[in-house]
Amino acid sequence: MAVVPPNSQQEMRRRNLSRVLYAVAGAGPVSRASIAGRIGLTRASVSTLVEELLRAGFLVELGPGRSGGVGRPGNALALTGLGPCGLGAEIGVDHLTVCAVDLGGRVRARIGDETPNGEAGPDSVLRRLSSLVDRVTTEAGAAGLRPAGLAVAVPGLVTRSSANVVRAPNLGWYDTDLGARLGGPGASLPLTVENEANFAALAELWLAGEGSARRDFIHVSAEVGIGAGVVIDGELLRGTRGFAGELGHVPVQPDGPRCACGGSGCLEQYAGEAALLRAAGIAVRGAGGRTAALARLRARASDGDEAALRALRRAGRALGIALAGAANLLDPRAVLLGGALTGLAPWLLPALEGELRQRTTTPGNVPEVAVSAVGSDAPSLGAAHSVVRTVLNDPLPYAVAH
Amino acid sequence: MAVVPPNSQQEMRRRNLSRVLYAVAGAGPVSRASIAGRIGLTRASVSTLVEELLRAGFLVELGPGRSGGVGRPGNALALTGLGPCGLGAEIGVDHLTVCAVDLGGRVRARIGDETPNGEAGPDSVLRRLSSLVDRVTTEAGAAGLRPAGLAVAVPGLVTRSSANVVRAPNLGWYDTDLGARLGGPGASLPLTVENEANFAALAELWLAGEGSARRDFIHVSAEVGIGAGVVIDGELLRGTRGFAGELGHVPVQPDGPRCACGGSGCLEQYAGEAALLRAAGIAVRGAGGRTAALARLRARASDGDEAALRALRRAGRALGIALAGAANLLDPRAVLLGGALTGLAPWLLPALEGELRQRTTTPGNVPEVAVSAVGSDAPSLGAAHSVVRTVLNDPLPYAVAH
Repeated sequence: MAVVPPNSQQEMRRRNLSRVLYAVAGAGPVSRASIAGRIGLTRASVSTLVEELLRAGFLVELGPGRSGGVGRPGNALALTGLGPCGLGAEIGVDHLTVCAVDLGGRVRARIGDETPNGEAGPDSVLRRLSSLVDRVTTEAGAAGLRPAGLAVAVPGLVTRSSANVVRAPNLGWYDTDLGARLGGPGASLPLTVENEANFAALAELWLAGEGSARRDFIHVSAEVGIGAGVVIDGELLRGTRGFAGELGHVPVQPDGPRCACGGSGCLEQYAGEAALLRAAGIAVRGAGGRTAALARLRARASDGDEAALRALRRAGRALGIALAGAANLLDPRAVLLGGALTGLAPWLLPALEGELRQRTTTPGNVPEVAVSAVGSDAPSLGAAHSVVRTVLNDPLPYAVAH
Repeated sequence: MAVVPPNSQQEMRRRNLSRVLYAVAGAGPVSRASIAGRIGLTRASVSTLVEELLRAGFLVELGPGRSGGVGRPGNALALTGLGPCGLGAEIGVDHLTVCAVDLGGRVRARIGDETPNGEAGPDSVLRRLSSLVDRVTTEAGAAGLRPAGLAVAVPGLVTRSSANVVRAPNLGWYDTDLGARLGGPGASLPLTVENEANFAALAELWLAGEGSARRDFIHVSAEVGIGAGVVIDGELLRGTRGFAGELGHVPVQPDGPRCACGGSGCLEQYAGEAALLRAAGIAVRGAGGRTAALARLRARASDGDEAALRALRRAGRALGIALAGAANLLDPRAVLLGGALTGLAPWLLPALEGELRQRTTTPGNVPEVAVSAVGSDAPSLGAAHSVVRTVLNDPLPYAVAH
């Protein structure tokens, strides 16, 4: 007897169930006929798959006339607002965020906590994170949702397919295994840990629309450090060890200032928050100081303060140099600015785009430059959606028993 | 009736035929039992597939005892030395190469031509290329081989999935469509055109062994310009437009010398052949002058000439800076030096590796650095093998009628 090949009937059914769920997720309330058209199966096959997904509780049938289209009334389908959900968390340098996202992509619970995490040590931070996870789980539970997994975004290098934070200098964490340390009810959930720039890029890929322009891009996200998520053909590039996307340590002036990474003249030394504020002559004071200092930088730039404008031009130029190198290597369709860079984009972009245009090898090779559409919650949203997609990819194991 | 899904029985059989061929290609003469073990199918299934491939002429059964293993004699299988073959060509700045590679990966015909192509214009160069293609086709035909396709490596940017050379400054070609211009019998063959650095990287992936170290790497190849092929998880990164891998135009000193690309301080201005020879005080004279000048550079470096050593250190440092940026972005397992860099590696590597170690964000993140195993024919070999793999991926359309 032959070994069961990977493309068996069972595997095909599993894949088709997933395709139906993604078709509904992508289109909102939608008829069986429209699903059939989208995924290239017959209406009869789709009806069988839909019945199974209705029985298992992943889809709901909306009332007549809600589909907005032609055909029999009462046939519009939507993803359930009950059952499995994804928990996403972000450990920032001075905040924690936890949210719950349902299968339809709606944020159903969200709790934030603004406390500096940089000197607290992993145990204290993870204890607070566990308590936020518990509170969000309780809130989601009251709404009929149960977490299918927890994904955590961290500002550091994470070994591929592990929960081990190899290096997060801005938190002071080195070789910190979150799997072993996360306590509370959250500890029993499947856990994923990923660099925050990676989850932010995935949020951009999954949430900012279906255009092909958003399937090949470099998403730059700055908080205290500068990271990037590289998406190629709709897939996140993780790298051999999981450390890809370290744009902040691309050299832009090889003989420039020393960097904590051991190199010199890294992008972070010109466009990182600390360098930017220092160059603009703005001091960071106390807790919440970073946010206030960035607001002051924006205000001064708006007022035409020359030191602020010069610091932003210098940062924009450094970003343009690093991104020109990245664009020559990767030929992305777009470069997207996220995180703290979003609010500074009006002053960063002219110099950034100038360098990019000048330094890419051919006019057709200049990527589009745009500001991220998702916003500052991108890391925790990307994390929560990664769990949701685990369910959509293979729903049946998450079905409630009948 | 359902639309035939992509994973039908027929598709599965096609895929399994391909897996058997790759198992034989990867192992040399091999028994049915050993194939079954390698691809995870039963011996009975493999026997059926093998019979079909023997009938269609892709496999041959070697005489008894040739398998070197246990079991019934006469059961060692090998890929045929007859039938479909791949034609690979390289258009270099001062040479043309065409070769024919059979399904077993053996080079069965190869013709080279050392003439400067830089000022001849595309029509003249492509006329000579066509005549070489015809000669190699005739030679291969006499050995019982017929070309299944022609793949051409060019030193320039090629639009993804097209035969259009957008820009090859060292040849003086701009928007040159090879499909429309290649005459002769070769014109009736399926044609693929690709950047030479990409085909060189693919040759490294396909020919230099099966180790995982060779599935995530940046392959740097220098001829007159510097290009790179980026391989991620065993796949070549082409980029949105097909222009990925332009390592030569990564900025290493943003205020450095102007480059023909419009930028300044590009890697090519420090480690490109012209820059290297100029810095070492070596002039290039007449046809074949580049090769002679590079040999002179090697000789002077061996003799300890300070100008030569300084130029090579500077080039090695520039390569290290550009590659550190690339490594921080892509986290490859290895960096491989190919093309003209191979012969200069002993003098380039110390500075290159020094920069790489210093500028990658964490010790575990430093990629291995090695010299390409394939050699200077990598572009034409990669090209020919790309055609061979088209056949191995889906053999039946290439079967001779019985």
